[in-house]
Amino acid sequence: MIKDSNRAGFVNQVVDAIRSVVGTTPVGLHEPTFDGNEWKYLKECLDSSYVSSVGKFVDQFEESLANYTGAKYAISVVNGTSALHIALKLAGVQPGDEVLVPALTFVATANAVTYCGATPHFVESEEGTLGIDVGKLRDYLHSIVETNSSQSINKITKKVIRAIVPMHTFGHPSDLDGLNLISREFNIALIEDAAESLGSFYKEKHTGTIGLVGVISFNGNKIITTGGGGAILTNDKSLATHAKHLTTTAKKPHQWDYDHDEIGYNYRMPNINAALGCAQLEQLTDKLKLKRILFSRYQDAFNSINGLTLFKEPVNTKSNYWLQTIVLNRQNEIFRDSILEECHRIGISARPAWKLLNQLEFFRTAPKMNLKCAEALHRRIINLPSSPSIYAKSIA
Amino acid sequence: MIKDSNRAGFVNQVVDAIRSVVGTTPVGLHEPTFDGNEWKYLKECLDSSYVSSVGKFVDQFEESLANYTGAKYAISVVNGTSALHIALKLAGVQPGDEVLVPALTFVATANAVTYCGATPHFVESEEGTLGIDVGKLRDYLHSIVETNSSQSINKITKKVIRAIVPMHTFGHPSDLDGLNLISREFNIALIEDAAESLGSFYKEKHTGTIGLVGVISFNGNKIITTGGGGAILTNDKSLATHAKHLTTTAKKPHQWDYDHDEIGYNYRMPNINAALGCAQLEQLTDKLKLKRILFSRYQDAFNSINGLTLFKEPVNTKSNYWLQTIVLNRQNEIFRDSILEECHRIGISARPAWKLLNQLEFFRTAPKMNLKCAEALHRRIINLPSSPSIYAKSIA
Repeated sequence: MIKDSNRAGFVNQVVDAIRSVVGTTPVGLHEPTFDGNEWKYLKECLDSSYVSSVGKFVDQFEESLANYTGAKYAISVVNGTSALHIALKLAGVQPGDEVLVPALTFVATANAVTYCGATPHFVESEEGTLGIDVGKLRDYLHSIVETNSSQSINKITKKVIRAIVPMHTFGHPSDLDGLNLISREFNIALIEDAAESLGSFYKEKHTGTIGLVGVISFNGNKIITTGGGGAILTNDKSLATHAKHLTTTAKKPHQWDYDHDEIGYNYRMPNINAALGCAQLEQLTDKLKLKRILFSRYQDAFNSINGLTLFKEPVNTKSNYWLQTIVLNRQNEIFRDSILEECHRIGISARPAWKLLNQLEFFRTAPKMNLKCAEALHRRIINLPSSPSIYAKSIA
Repeated sequence: MIKDSNRAGFVNQVVDAIRSVVGTTPVGLHEPTFDGNEWKYLKECLDSSYVSSVGKFVDQFEESLANYTGAKYAISVVNGTSALHIALKLAGVQPGDEVLVPALTFVATANAVTYCGATPHFVESEEGTLGIDVGKLRDYLHSIVETNSSQSINKITKKVIRAIVPMHTFGHPSDLDGLNLISREFNIALIEDAAESLGSFYKEKHTGTIGLVGVISFNGNKIITTGGGGAILTNDKSLATHAKHLTTTAKKPHQWDYDHDEIGYNYRMPNINAALGCAQLEQLTDKLKLKRILFSRYQDAFNSINGLTLFKEPVNTKSNYWLQTIVLNRQNEIFRDSILEECHRIGISARPAWKLLNQLEFFRTAPKMNLKCAEALHRRIINLPSSPSIYAKSIA
């Protein structure tokens, strides 16, 4: 039994700490700001009349994104989910395959697997990165798969495990060295779900550029936005060409003929969204700085509070700190909902982690490993308001 | 054998007629113009900072679209292809089903069928509407299906024929009374691919509002554009609710929890694209007028040329004349490519109809009926420059 006074004490401490950083006016979880060339480029886009499927901003956005991330190729698409879908297709994921996906991720990671007719196979997370627990996964795979020179087959389901999709949780890079080793040892393609981690680096390399293919999101709640949008990153020229082809209805180039050589998708990013993206990308470095300052202000605020940890970027990584995160100690997990309720009561948009995907009704029969740590993390995580603009507000 | 002088004579006649309407400067097939509140609304959208998945322009666009079309509900999505995908899901199309689709349509109509794990079954077109030939289809269905009180089963493939998707070709309404009868007689859901026909009416009713579900596109080449975008129309409240749910990741409403009750999609239209759409929709009536004037100018230009027909809206319909179309007489079909080549040489973006879908490599094994008329139409159709702005240009 917890005394009400204890409950109130801890909850108030936490909420006061958040308020000391974000101020007293209502604050969203992650809101975009448009302080650069957004208007100029949008106007230029309208004046050119190229707002749709072709136009210079699409090319420019893809080029700038490749430059910034160091990926050889960037293909812009309509959102992160469509980018994941195509990334899985590029990795050869076929109906009947299995794809390793963390249970602790946004539903899109696993939904995209089903779009390919494949099944997600849920894997465990670790506290250090909030990403896939490579050590436990390796042991698990050794116990359930049969590996030959080209692929690994799940001995229980008899399905090919075609790909693994680590997600860089809240912007923090997963253990990519370890995941690369898994990918090689078991012949499983490594696709990085870097939807949340534009601006995050693992040992100097940008997330999304280490696996075979990487995926970025520019949804309105991300560090920069194109309204809705995403991108596919790869260093492989033929995959890049195929990605562009698949996302633009797989039409064969011809001056007027409409001929298509495979089932394609209408996933291209419109030029008007790319125009917004070009302006936003110019401000990414500034936003990253503001988010690191916000992290250190949260550090100051939580410094004297026992019973929780403010999540810090893993060693060997530089995180974009997309969503600032506290992880309650196990004995304090019972306070999570009270903290969330009090936050919402006073207009602070805090939120828990996503419900674990293996617990969603339609994924209950999907294969999974022991998910104890993911389950514990779900009970203990709270995401805090994280807009880069908060720092500016809080010192105003 | 055709004498070269004859060929040159007819080709020149046709090209000169086009040029007399569109002028001598290069002209695209269908280009958008932004003469209204586009800039104002985009600015408002940026100022509000709601550019992404929620915002007032999405609601306003959906409401205006419902008002204009007379549909009870309109759900905006990321493009016409995604609208088709969801429309098919709403109609209950499942893996293993067949869906009747004209062979003469853009590839998205049939691709969307495959996204549901179903197979397109290609059907014949008629000269009068360029849409599905209802009479021939009815006879064909009688010969190949077994119909019970709830569904029709293809006796050859043993698959359920779940839906029929007429496409209103180049904006001209198909025979919707006839299609409705087919839908009822054979228990096949009627989904209207009205991607091209915003502003087109069949007996006073807007296309896309007569079937169970209808689909609109706002791609850059359509009569109005949102950059990229589409909409689902329906008069059924529960289908509308389900459409919104499916297109927004099937998330259950909750202040902070992320729980989903079925496999969903990230298909919502961003607010910034809806802002553009609101401004464009205000100009639709004017654009429709300009397109009818353009048609009558083409009429004047082609009046004295034998050997072709300028396609006119079918009886009982009012077409948006999305793409102006000439249909060469059978003996002149051999001139189609020469006309296209000459047009392109002088900067006029004319184009033929899409390659018939049953002839695409990946649809070659799909079931189909006799497609003689569709094949003939494909050899004879040329789409002409059709931008509403051309009339203004040509009288300038």
